[in-house]
Amino acid sequence: MNKITKVPDKKEAPVLGIDLGGTKILASVVDPTGKIIARSKKKTKAEKPWRVVISRIAECAKDAAEISNIPLADFAAAGIGAPGALNPDTGIINLAPNLNWENVNLREILEQELQIPVFINNDVNMGTLGECRMGSGVGMKNVVGIFIGTGIGGGIILDGKIYGGASYMAGEIGHIPMVDNGPLCGCGKKGCFEAVAGRLAIVRDIIEGLKKGKESILSDEVGENYSKIKSRRLALAWNKRDPLTVKVLKKAAVYIGKGVATVITILSPDAVILGGGLIEAIDEDFLELIKKSAEANSFPSSLRNTKIIRALLGDDAGILGSALYARECLSKK
Amino acid sequence: MNKITKVPDKKEAPVLGIDLGGTKILASVVDPTGKIIARSKKKTKAEKPWRVVISRIAECAKDAAEISNIPLADFAAAGIGAPGALNPDTGIINLAPNLNWENVNLREILEQELQIPVFINNDVNMGTLGECRMGSGVGMKNVVGIFIGTGIGGGIILDGKIYGGASYMAGEIGHIPMVDNGPLCGCGKKGCFEAVAGRLAIVRDIIEGLKKGKESILSDEVGENYSKIKSRRLALAWNKRDPLTVKVLKKAAVYIGKGVATVITILSPDAVILGGGLIEAIDEDFLELIKKSAEANSFPSSLRNTKIIRALLGDDAGILGSALYARECLSKK
Repeated sequence: MNKITKVPDKKEAPVLGIDLGGTKILASVVDPTGKIIARSKKKTKAEKPWRVVISRIAECAKDAAEISNIPLADFAAAGIGAPGALNPDTGIINLAPNLNWENVNLREILEQELQIPVFINNDVNMGTLGECRMGSGVGMKNVVGIFIGTGIGGGIILDGKIYGGASYMAGEIGHIPMVDNGPLCGCGKKGCFEAVAGRLAIVRDIIEGLKKGKESILSDEVGENYSKIKSRRLALAWNKRDPLTVKVLKKAAVYIGKGVATVITILSPDAVILGGGLIEAIDEDFLELIKKSAEANSFPSSLRNTKIIRALLGDDAGILGSALYARECLSKK
Repeated sequence: MNKITKVPDKKEAPVLGIDLGGTKILASVVDPTGKIIARSKKKTKAEKPWRVVISRIAECAKDAAEISNIPLADFAAAGIGAPGALNPDTGIINLAPNLNWENVNLREILEQELQIPVFINNDVNMGTLGECRMGSGVGMKNVVGIFIGTGIGGGIILDGKIYGGASYMAGEIGHIPMVDNGPLCGCGKKGCFEAVAGRLAIVRDIIEGLKKGKESILSDEVGENYSKIKSRRLALAWNKRDPLTVKVLKKAAVYIGKGVATVITILSPDAVILGGGLIEAIDEDFLELIKKSAEANSFPSSLRNTKIIRALLGDDAGILGSALYARECLSKK
């Protein structure tokens, strides 16, 4: 249970929505209608001790509150989406490799800093909730979000609520087995979905092509400075139909479609929402390839009622989802 | 809505639990404590017109009631698990290939025959519900059932309730994509889970081996009468360590483990319950192979809280699940 119980009128008060990433912290003030009325941003500085990072989160949240001209004490709650394995009930981050955190009681310390109730959940879950409530999934009850970033993140909303399963780790769609004895994944397994279709996997295949001397505008653009190949650059090269990029991304689209098909065949949701930097920046033809592969690999009757759609909110999905989550948790108390 | 509204005291009255299969109909009388107090069985005769089959279902149910010495009018309701694509809200079987049914209003006609409220759902969902409430999943909220029969059926219980998704077709786990350009599946796709690990797939691989002259006790047992190779015979040959059977089933176990891993990585349920004829008849070593493959292919943190266990109820899972489903639907009205 949260220790802070003195709260203003829950329904009328604004909430803070926070997205904690490995490189940046985003905070926002969200009014009772779900509108973002102030924002702030800070570098995470994940290399610092966790106490410092949590102070930076609190500062970022306070900055957003100050911009909105609303005193912190007038907020109903704060919601925060965090990466890694965590427990929404205890508020503890069990393990967040890209923050180097282990067993950090994020909620307790953040409540001490902000003096309002704090609710935590996984960042991808929060993003999926944001899209479900305010983005491309409005009006839907069962939605799965698949976000193509460095890896591939998944979030599941069932019956309108975040579904965490027995471990609070449900939705690790990036780690479903995809290719027998495939490339090694960051998780230690081989051939996971994200090890063949996440951005790191795509860039790995592009670099392999470049090293083999394949023709590509990317070699003119980045030379051997491969770390410059990010989602936006990949999407632009695709949009220009760069041969190497097209070849690698076509393969990735087939795998992404298979991942989508697996989700549809098991869960038959109202929608699979595709998001993340690459999806946001790329043209419709790429989405069509994904859909084609998803259709070819889904059980036909399960597919019939599922939409495959693009996320609409970009970075706002996480902060909006966190804010709405906090409000919904509060109303259940 | 069901048209029949006159019902006896819901909580004290028994319910009928029916399992409609392609070859046999099972009916049972289940008392308020969940105990089966009478049973009956009839051939489906799926080759006959659907009206005839529904009359046979009604007769089977009436037989069970008669054995229990309880007049039909004293039952609270009947639940029936049926194969294929159906809609529990309308009571209509949209498509059941192994019955040759299309758009049959099973519920309405069965209510006319029995004069008590009837509730329908998919047979595998009912079996999973039965295992969840009275079998190996007792006390669990999120459970996935995987039944290895002719094909591979899946049922999903989330938050204690059957999860149907947008199409009422969720849980078609047998049709998740498993092998690129693999063997043709009955659904028209290639390389589905059941096309490489269902009983038909296993028998196909065994026959291929027998035709190549591989050594096997099965060739002594069945000669060229391959249709005699059913689940029990396969399990016995495995238990005796018949070389061809062991080779084929080891491969199937790896695929079954991958299917289990996919479910665990996406849903992180409390348990994956494995059932069906083959699983019931086979020894623990086969289960261990499945578990080993599931562990190797699951995202480690998702796996941690999920048990992989054997179904306990056999054929009773379906009739008990149907009976409990009817009771639960009734209590919601």
